[in-house]
Amino acid sequence: MDSSNRIDSQQISRRRQGLLGRYHEFQNRKITLDMTRGKPSPEQLDLSQGLLDCLSRKDVKAMDGSDCRNYGGLDGLPEAKVLFAGYMGVAPDEILIGGNSSLSLMHDAMNWAWAFGTGPGHVPWSRQAAVKFLCPSPGYDRHFAICEHLGIEMIPVQLHGAGPDMDAVEALAAADAGIKGIWCVPKYSNPTGEVYSKEVVERLARTRAQAADFRIFWDNAYAYHHLGNGPARLADILQACRTAGHPDRALLFGSTSKISFAGSGLAFMAGSRANMNWAKSHLGFQTIGPDKLNQLRHTIFFKDLSGIEHHMQRHAGILKPKFDAVQEVLDRELAGKGIAEWTRPAGGYFVSINTREGCARRVVKLAAEAGVKLTPAGATFPQRKDPCDRNIRIAPSFPSVADIRTAMDVIAVSLELAFLEKHQ
Amino acid sequence: MDSSNRIDSQQISRRRQGLLGRYHEFQNRKITLDMTRGKPSPEQLDLSQGLLDCLSRKDVKAMDGSDCRNYGGLDGLPEAKVLFAGYMGVAPDEILIGGNSSLSLMHDAMNWAWAFGTGPGHVPWSRQAAVKFLCPSPGYDRHFAICEHLGIEMIPVQLHGAGPDMDAVEALAAADAGIKGIWCVPKYSNPTGEVYSKEVVERLARTRAQAADFRIFWDNAYAYHHLGNGPARLADILQACRTAGHPDRALLFGSTSKISFAGSGLAFMAGSRANMNWAKSHLGFQTIGPDKLNQLRHTIFFKDLSGIEHHMQRHAGILKPKFDAVQEVLDRELAGKGIAEWTRPAGGYFVSINTREGCARRVVKLAAEAGVKLTPAGATFPQRKDPCDRNIRIAPSFPSVADIRTAMDVIAVSLELAFLEKHQ
Repeated sequence: MDSSNRIDSQQISRRRQGLLGRYHEFQNRKITLDMTRGKPSPEQLDLSQGLLDCLSRKDVKAMDGSDCRNYGGLDGLPEAKVLFAGYMGVAPDEILIGGNSSLSLMHDAMNWAWAFGTGPGHVPWSRQAAVKFLCPSPGYDRHFAICEHLGIEMIPVQLHGAGPDMDAVEALAAADAGIKGIWCVPKYSNPTGEVYSKEVVERLARTRAQAADFRIFWDNAYAYHHLGNGPARLADILQACRTAGHPDRALLFGSTSKISFAGSGLAFMAGSRANMNWAKSHLGFQTIGPDKLNQLRHTIFFKDLSGIEHHMQRHAGILKPKFDAVQEVLDRELAGKGIAEWTRPAGGYFVSINTREGCARRVVKLAAEAGVKLTPAGATFPQRKDPCDRNIRIAPSFPSVADIRTAMDVIAVSLELAFLEKHQ
Repeated sequence: MDSSNRIDSQQISRRRQGLLGRYHEFQNRKITLDMTRGKPSPEQLDLSQGLLDCLSRKDVKAMDGSDCRNYGGLDGLPEAKVLFAGYMGVAPDEILIGGNSSLSLMHDAMNWAWAFGTGPGHVPWSRQAAVKFLCPSPGYDRHFAICEHLGIEMIPVQLHGAGPDMDAVEALAAADAGIKGIWCVPKYSNPTGEVYSKEVVERLARTRAQAADFRIFWDNAYAYHHLGNGPARLADILQACRTAGHPDRALLFGSTSKISFAGSGLAFMAGSRANMNWAKSHLGFQTIGPDKLNQLRHTIFFKDLSGIEHHMQRHAGILKPKFDAVQEVLDRELAGKGIAEWTRPAGGYFVSINTREGCARRVVKLAAEAGVKLTPAGATFPQRKDPCDRNIRIAPSFPSVADIRTAMDVIAVSLELAFLEKHQ
């Protein structure tokens, strides 16, 4: 062993001792912090307090004259359709306003395709041979869970910073009629924060899928959820699909869960008129209609799209310092060390960290043992299996800036300790 | 032809002329009335106006401390479970509070049994040979529609005034493992208004069904919806099922759709703890949770079960004169004539009329041509086929008493005209 190696090894050992000292100090502070929750903070929820009492006792009629307190209207109030059609970039007859959960609408759409097929002349997916879905990963665990629950095989596809690896998507979809669709979070993707490029959107629309009933599940959950510089531009997937000759390929989803109240907001599904008719033909068997009073509340409170835009600017004002705190600690502690890479999102709810291969589980464990709860490693991949064991999802929206700084200090130390354990 | 026959024939002809005179008079009045809608009237909805503004901006925490404006809680607020467990006659851990629609929960339960089976060790209904459901008829069209949509064969069973023909239910269920369940509206049944007797409830619980996964879909939609004399007593189906050794047989459903606001109320599903766990194990894939603010509104507004009872007494005060008007006209016009039989419900939303065989469609057509819309004949039977063409459903909750009198006059004349056409 030559002297330079001895010096390196001594340096590493000293570095590790220093980190362990800091780590034990954190442990002694009995921290209890949670960085797993992609949910709004109380301050964000306070922005929508006006929703609680904006309905007056004289004001329960919709613009079509219907009494919002009574039955009627399967697909939402006309004024809610107008407002959220604008929000989703579609026409009012290309949207339906559902209950409180876009996840429910996605589950419904998958379930209808599964049990009844995607439309006239299409065989239900449940009666076809192996049904598979493309899953850009890391992605949203609840998308993957819907597939897993139905027994749909998931095929991970890499994300390249501006959407999924389209060469892989095209090759897979063209080769296998069992591939029935793809999950997409096209703007400020969960968790990588990326925005699909125009090229990716158009290639998704054009993809020569073997399956005639190939569907893009387009979960535009963060359409206006920027961090201060206004919402990013996203190409129009419906228009692209029409142009490509696949007008019914895309099913769009969105909600106000992170605009108004999480769990007490509105969810919507958009797409071609044929797809809206398809949806209503099944929806009519499972409900008489959505909560119209809550739709009326939202249209009164937000008024129009600029009302939503103004509101989202205020959300950004609360979220920006939190995301800044994450970057600040990661930059200070880890920049240039080759230990981890992380995203610098301009919107959404997450920062995604990639450790060196094989470290993520260890980092999550180390952080937990110092009082910082992280999303389980692997959770962002189909079947909770991260093939490289390297992705960690950070959710900074809920804790305070001070708590985020503390949590990120713990995480940074855990990242470096795990790296040294693995690679020294 | 002897003289008495000639006299009868002349009498009938005169009677018919008189009726036609009245009928044409109705037609000349250009009436437009709708007796199809089983929905609350505006006056009933006004009883719940307090729900619109009972939430204060400082009052958004549940009793467990959770912020009702944010994510969390798959199966409802603890205080909502306590309130509606009392309402449904179950324990708080035997209920879950869902969204705004009990129909959705029934559809969910059917869909889970269909796609995944009724629980561990049970094969999904979709992968079993012919699946059939017993359908006490006349019944609720939306129950039958769920079966029809999934391709579940429906077997009509007669109702005997205190529930379904249990001899038939027992014989059918014992003979055929394909019979997976039965739809029941056990109190103030839609549309016959009957209340299942204790004997019927206990026989349903005890029935020796061939299918181990036999389920009673117990839609207690009108549990407290009496017409002035307080809610009828209904035997405890869950207890009866436990006693009979079939603790997981019954799935109970209810809602506040006709207590608070139709479409903006709360829906619940109740049953054994095993069934609640089964429900949650699937529900968790399709939603993050229900609208907790609306649950909080309901618990604040109603406070406790006696609050609901008091409220339902006020509903009864509005509904009673409407149901009385139906009876008054039918008694005055048709009593003792052998033309029709009708129910005299003590609760619920409907009066059920049975014409003589083969007249119902004609009555509905005659009434329509005089401006009174009735539920299509047959709608109350599986696949919309009334084998005797005799059942007509009257929904008196929505129109005014004066309009009900006019509509019932038209209906009575139509009933007699159709009878004379058929049987003279």
